[in-house]
Amino acid sequence: MSFNTFGKIFRFTTWGESHGPAICCVVDGCPPNIPLSEKDIQIDMNRRRPGKSRFTSQRKESDKVQILSGVFQGKTTGTPISMIIYNQDARSRDYETIKNKFRPGHADYTYLMKYGIRDFRGGGRQSARETASRVAAGAIAKTVLNKLIGRKFKIVGGVVQLGLLGCNKNIWNEKEIKKNQFFCPDKKAVKLWEKYLLAIRKAGSSCGAVIELRASGVPTGLGAPIYSKLDSDLASALMSINAVKGVSIGAGMNAAFLNGEENSDEIRSIGGKTKFKSNNAGGILGGISSGQEIIVSFAVKPTSSILKTRETIDKKGKNTKISVKGRHDPCVGIRAVPIGEAMMSCVLLDHYLLNQAQCG
Amino acid sequence: MSFNTFGKIFRFTTWGESHGPAICCVVDGCPPNIPLSEKDIQIDMNRRRPGKSRFTSQRKESDKVQILSGVFQGKTTGTPISMIIYNQDARSRDYETIKNKFRPGHADYTYLMKYGIRDFRGGGRQSARETASRVAAGAIAKTVLNKLIGRKFKIVGGVVQLGLLGCNKNIWNEKEIKKNQFFCPDKKAVKLWEKYLLAIRKAGSSCGAVIELRASGVPTGLGAPIYSKLDSDLASALMSINAVKGVSIGAGMNAAFLNGEENSDEIRSIGGKTKFKSNNAGGILGGISSGQEIIVSFAVKPTSSILKTRETIDKKGKNTKISVKGRHDPCVGIRAVPIGEAMMSCVLLDHYLLNQAQCG
Amino acid sequence: MSFNTFGKIFRFTTWGESHGPAICCVVDGCPPNIPLSEKDIQIDMNRRRPGKSRFTSQRKESDKVQILSGVFQGKTTGTPISMIIYNQDARSRDYETIKNKFRPGHADYTYLMKYGIRDFRGGGRQSARETASRVAAGAIAKTVLNKLIGRKFKIVGGVVQLGLLGCNKNIWNEKEIKKNQFFCPDKKAVKLWEKYLLAIRKAGSSCGAVIELRASGVPTGLGAPIYSKLDSDLASALMSINAVKGVSIGAGMNAAFLNGEENSDEIRSIGGKTKFKSNNAGGILGGISSGQEIIVSFAVKPTSSILKTRETIDKKGKNTKISVKGRHDPCVGIRAVPIGEAMMSCVLLDHYLLNQAQCG
Amino acid sequence: MSFNTFGKIFRFTTWGESHGPAICCVVDGCPPNIPLSEKDIQIDMNRRRPGKSRFTSQRKESDKVQILSGVFQGKTTGTPISMIIYNQDARSRDYETIKNKFRPGHADYTYLMKYGIRDFRGGGRQSARETASRVAAGAIAKTVLNKLIGRKFKIVGGVVQLGLLGCNKNIWNEKEIKKNQFFCPDKKAVKLWEKYLLAIRKAGSSCGAVIELRASGVPTGLGAPIYSKLDSDLASALMSINAVKGVSIGAGMNAAFLNGEENSDEIRSIGGKTKFKSNNAGGILGGISSGQEIIVSFAVKPTSSILKTRETIDKKGKNTKISVKGRHDPCVGIRAVPIGEAMMSCVLLDHYLLNQAQCG
Repeated sequence: MSFNTFGKIFRFTTWGESHGPAICCVVDGCPPNIPLSEKDIQIDMNRRRPGKSRFTSQRKESDKVQILSGVFQGKTTGTPISMIIYNQDARSRDYETIKNKFRPGHADYTYLMKYGIRDFRGGGRQSARETASRVAAGAIAKTVLNKLIGRKFKIVGGVVQLGLLGCNKNIWNEKEIKKNQFFCPDKKAVKLWEKYLLAIRKAGSSCGAVIELRASGVPTGLGAPIYSKLDSDLASALMSINAVKGVSIGAGMNAAFLNGEENSDEIRSIGGKTKFKSNNAGGILGGISSGQEIIVSFAVKPTSSILKTRETIDKKGKNTKISVKGRHDPCVGIRAVPIGEAMMSCVLLDHYLLNQAQCG
Repeated sequence: MSFNTFGKIFRFTTWGESHGPAICCVVDGCPPNIPLSEKDIQIDMNRRRPGKSRFTSQRKESDKVQILSGVFQGKTTGTPISMIIYNQDARSRDYETIKNKFRPGHADYTYLMKYGIRDFRGGGRQSARETASRVAAGAIAKTVLNKLIGRKFKIVGGVVQLGLLGCNKNIWNEKEIKKNQFFCPDKKAVKLWEKYLLAIRKAGSSCGAVIELRASGVPTGLGAPIYSKLDSDLASALMSINAVKGVSIGAGMNAAFLNGEENSDEIRSIGGKTKFKSNNAGGILGGISSGQEIIVSFAVKPTSSILKTRETIDKKGKNTKISVKGRHDPCVGIRAVPIGEAMMSCVLLDHYLLNQAQCG
Repeated sequence: MSFNTFGKIFRFTTWGESHGPAICCVVDGCPPNIPLSEKDIQIDMNRRRPGKSRFTSQRKESDKVQILSGVFQGKTTGTPISMIIYNQDARSRDYETIKNKFRPGHADYTYLMKYGIRDFRGGGRQSARETASRVAAGAIAKTVLNKLIGRKFKIVGGVVQLGLLGCNKNIWNEKEIKKNQFFCPDKKAVKLWEKYLLAIRKAGSSCGAVIELRASGVPTGLGAPIYSKLDSDLASALMSINAVKGVSIGAGMNAAFLNGEENSDEIRSIGGKTKFKSNNAGGILGGISSGQEIIVSFAVKPTSSILKTRETIDKKGKNTKISVKGRHDPCVGIRAVPIGEAMMSCVLLDHYLLNQAQCG
Repeated sequence: MSFNTFGKIFRFTTWGESHGPAICCVVDGCPPNIPLSEKDIQIDMNRRRPGKSRFTSQRKESDKVQILSGVFQGKTTGTPISMIIYNQDARSRDYETIKNKFRPGHADYTYLMKYGIRDFRGGGRQSARETASRVAAGAIAKTVLNKLIGRKFKIVGGVVQLGLLGCNKNIWNEKEIKKNQFFCPDKKAVKLWEKYLLAIRKAGSSCGAVIELRASGVPTGLGAPIYSKLDSDLASALMSINAVKGVSIGAGMNAAFLNGEENSDEIRSIGGKTKFKSNNAGGILGGISSGQEIIVSFAVKPTSSILKTRETIDKKGKNTKISVKGRHDPCVGIRAVPIGEAMMSCVLLDHYLLNQAQCG
C-alpha cells in the first residue's frame, strides 16, 4: 500500500501541503556509502523551482533543501534520508476567495467528495508543490546511479511539444536544452515558442506540452516480465505527476499506426556488440531493458488555473463562476521536465537494485 | 514487491508458461459472500480465447477455467480463489527451429540477458497466453463490482483504431461492439476493417490498434492523491499488458494540444446533481474519480511474430535472419479488449475496497 | 518492502538519528475527519520520555512533538501526518571514546558489517530514541480507534516481571499502573522493585523485564487467516522494538505445558452474548480477534550499556575492553510499556481498516 | 498487503482448502538458474506428511508435489514456480456432524464472525493442511540458499519440550533428530516421551511443545534495522504457523531474568575471526545477523481437536457440547518442526536477496 510512497526497494515518501510550514521527502532503501551532499540535490531543485522566468509561476521559493538524517560524514549510511524544504512565499489569502468554489480541472471537488474535508490553501496536498519532494528523491537516485553504473549513465528530458507547436525531435541538442527556458532540444523552435507562450499568458489562458525523457547507459536486464515491468512502472511514475494525462514508451500511442515490419526493431551484431536498427520499443522488450536508450514521453494538460472566467459550482452545490488569480505557470509542462527526470531516475534505480536482488 | 502479482487489496497472482501444463490465476482479497461460479468467469474467457475467427491466432484452446479453491456452496469465502486453465494445443515443435534466435520485437533477447535461461517454447512466460489469467481475475472483479455497486456499474471496451484506419468514436454503439469481430463501436467501419486486416494477414504482416475503455457507474472518491492515483494505477495496469506502448486518460496525449479553457471541464449543478460539461479529464481529477464516466485508451503495437523475413542475431551473437511461422494474430490489439476491461475492473475494485478502508 | 515503514493501510515511516537534528514520524493512511491535536500525541510522548525518574536515562529531552502536515483546522485530512521531535540534549562527546569499539549487546558490529559505515553518535539510527516516533504514531492510532470504535476500546500495558522479580498478575490494577514508576499493576510489588532496581543501578548493571499488554473492546473479526494474522502482525510489531527477545500471545510460550482440555477456551452463550470460559488464546483464534480481551506479552533484555567492564574488539579486529558510561536506563523494559501500547494500537487500527476494506 | 502471501522478494502465495481438490504454493522471486526438481521438494514434504507414525494424524496423504511452472530443463527460470498437491484422503463426512458447532480452540467461530461464511469441511482454509504449502516453499528456499551460500549453510529444528517433559538441550544431536519420531535432539528423552504421548493419546487428550530452530552458516549482515528486522520477520513467520503462541529469539522470554553482564555476548577476536563468548542474542543484533548461529524457538499449543467433551455453542448461539472425532495429532508440535524450518529458510533467503539489493 502506498498512498504517498513510491518505489519498491528505493522508496520515497512525501508529505506536506502547499501552504503548510514545509514539504518533505524521506528516501528509504538508499544504498550505503554513496557520497551525498545538499548541493547534489539543490542543483535539481533549482531546475524545478518557480519564479525563475516569465514562463513559470511568480511564487518566490528558494526551495532550499536541508538533509536531516541518513547522511554521516558526507556519505549515505543506509538509513532513511530525510529532506525538508520550508515554504516561504505562501500567500494563503489568494485562496480565501475561492475556498468554497471548485476550480474546474483541479481536484478540489474530488478531494472534498472523498475525504469530506480539504485544505484549500494553495490546493493543500493536491498542489504541484509536492513535486519538489520528488525532485529531491530523484536527485539522490541520479547520484546513486552515477556511482553504481558510472558516468555513462545519463537522463535528459526536454519539451518536444508546446501546445500546438512542435519542434524537430531529430535535433536532440542537450546543450540547447540546458540553455533555453523551455528545456527545448531544438534551438530553432525557441523564438516562436516564446512568442506563443507570451500570447497565451497575456490572454489569461494556458497550454499543454509533451515531454520526452531519454536515459542512456542503462544496463540490459532491468525490469520484470509481468507486473513490475519497467515500462509499467515508468507509466505509473509519470502518470502520478500532477496534470499528466498520457504516457508513451518508444513509438507509444503511434505504435498503433505501424505495421509489424516497421515496428519491430531488427537486431544486428556489430563488432561483437548487439545493436538494434531502430528503437520503436523505446529500449524495453517484454518489460525488461534491452540496453538501448530508454525513451519515454508524457503529455501534460494545460494549467487549469486560468484568468478566464469558467463555470463551476460551490460547496453547497450552487452554480457559480470562477476566475483563478493566484500565480500560475502558463504551461506547467515546462517545469515537468526535471520532475519527469526525477521519477525516471527513481524507477531505474529501483529496478537496478531489484535486479541485484534477483539476479545477483 | 510484485513481479507476478497485481493489486493492493484485491490482488491476483498469475503463473504458468505458454507451453507448460497449465496457466493459473490466484485471486486474494476478494470479499466474502459474493455468488460466483465458473460460468461467470468462462463468459469473459471466451471473449479473449484464440481460434474463434480469421483474425485471431488459430491455436485451439478451449480455455476452460476450473475453480480449485475459495468458493464454497456457490459463494466466495474470503480465502484465495484459484483458477486453473490447462494448455491443450501447445505445439512446441513450432518453436524448435527458432529456439536459438531472438525474434525482433519479442522479449527473447531481454529474458536471456536478464535470467541467463529462458523457456523458449511458445515464448514461455513472456507469451500473451498469460493474459488469460488476467481475464479470469477481471471476471471476478466485475462480478464483485456488480454486486457491491449494483447493475449501473459497467465497463465496455472497443477498438477505435485498427492500424491506419480509425472509426467514428462518437458512435459508441455497445450492441455493435458485441456483434462484430473487432469489438468496433462503429458499424460503418467494420467492412473496411475486414478487408484491411485480411490484406495485412495475406501479406504476412500485422498491424497495431488503439483500444478505448469506458467505465460508467463508478462512485466518486475512488483513488488516492499522490502515488496510488486511479489514473496512475490504470496506466500501470494497462502498460503491463503485452505489446501495449501507450496509455491515455481522457484527452490523454492530446491534452497537450488544448488550451486551458478547452481542457478543464466546467461543472454544473443540474437538478441537484453535479454534472460536467465535458470529459477531457476522463473522469479522474487529482487521481480520484469524479463520478463521470472513466475513459482510458491504450495503444497496442503490431504483432511482432510475422511471416516477413527479419534480421536478427542468434544466441551466440551471430547475424542471421528469421521468419516466424507459428499461429499468430494479425492484430493482437483485438483480443486486448477483454484484457483491458479485465485490468480496469481489477483496478476499480481495488480502489473501491481501499476507499472502504480509508473512508469507511 | 518496508525497512523503516510499518503497517499495511495505516502506515508510518520513521527517520532520524539519536544525535542528528531531529527524529520524525510520518503517518500515512489515517482516516480523514478525526479531531487531532499535538496535545493528544504529547500525552503519550511524555509517558515514554527519558529523564523523568531515577529509573530512566538522565538524558533531558522534552520530546515536544510538532505536527507539520495532514491536519487542517483541527482535523485529519486523509493526507500524511508528519510529526517532528527535535533532539536537544545530544551529548555526542559521550560516544567519542567508544566510536571505534563495538559495544557488546548493541548493533554496532552488525551495522558496520552490513553497511560498511555507521553513525556512532549515540548509536545513530540503532538508538532506542527511534521509539519516540513509534509512540507518536501510536497516539494517533489510539485517537482514531477511540473515535471509530468508541470509548469502550482501551489498551493498557504494564510491567509484570522486573528482572528476577515478578508480581501478582491477577491484580491488574490500572490505576496503580498509572501511579508508580514501573507501570506495575500490583501495588504490593512496587516497594521491592524500587530497592531491587536501585541496587542494580548502583552495581552498574541492568535487568530485563516482561511487559503485558491488554486491549479490550476490540471488535470480533480483525485479522486475516494466513500471513496477516493478527497475532503474527503483533509479534512482528513487538519484536521490532529495540531489545525485545520474545513475544507471547495469551498463554504464549507456556501453552506448551498445557494439555488440550486445559488450553482450548470453552465457549458459552450467556444472555445472548458469546463468552469464553478462559482466555489462553489471548483473544485471537486462527489469526482473527474473537471479541475477548487481547493479551500479549513480550520480554525485554537488560540494557546492554552498563558500567561493568566487558570484553570486546575494536574496528580493526583487536581485542579490547569497554565500559559504557553515557546515560542509560537500568531497565529499558520500563519505558517499553508506552512503546508496546503504541505498536499494538497501530496493528489494531491497521486491521480495523483492513477489515473495512475486505468485509465492508 | 498479503493475506495469503509471505515474503518481500522471495515471496510465496498459498491457496486451497483441507477438503478441496488440492492445495498449492506459488513461489515468486526465486533466482534463476538454480537446479531444482520435484525430488528436492518431496524430501521435506515427506518429513511433514501425516500418517507416518502413531504420533501423527492417521489421514493418509502421499503429499506428492508436482511442479507446474517456473522450472525448465531442470533449472529455475526466474518465473513463478507453482507446486500443486492433490488432496486424497479427505473424509468430509467426519465433519458433517460438527458443521454447526464451533470447536473450542479452533477458528470456526472467528471465521464465521469475520466472513459470514465458512468452509467447515476439515476446517477449510484454517486447517493445518495449509502448512504443506509452506514446506514446499521452504524446500525451494533451502535449495537456493545451499546454492548461493554453499553447503556450510544448514537449518536444523528439533522438539525440545513435549508437554511437561523437557530434554537436555545441551545435547543437540542432529543425527538423533533424524532418527526418532519426535525430532528430539536428546536420545535419552525419547523413551519417556513415547510413553507420555501414548498416555495422552489414550486419554483422548493432547499436549503442546516447544521447537527450537538453529541456522548455521548464515552470513553477517542479513536483516534491516527498524521494521524489517531479521528477528521481527522470523517472529512474524513462526507466529503465522497454526497453533503457535510464542516466539523467542536466543534467550527469548528468559532474557527478562538476566542482568546486563550475563546477557550481552562479549566479543573476541580469535585467529583473526570474530567470535562471541555466548549467544543470548540468538545470532541477531539490532535486527541484523551477526554471523553466529541463529537460534529461535517457538511454542505450539496442544491440539484443540480432542476426544474429551467440551462446552461450546452452535451457529445459532445455543449452548451445547462437542467431542471432536476425526483423525488428529496428539501433539501438532512434532510436525511443526519441518514447517518451522521451512519458514525460517524463506525468511533467510528473503533477507539474503534483500541484502544483495541494498548492499550489492
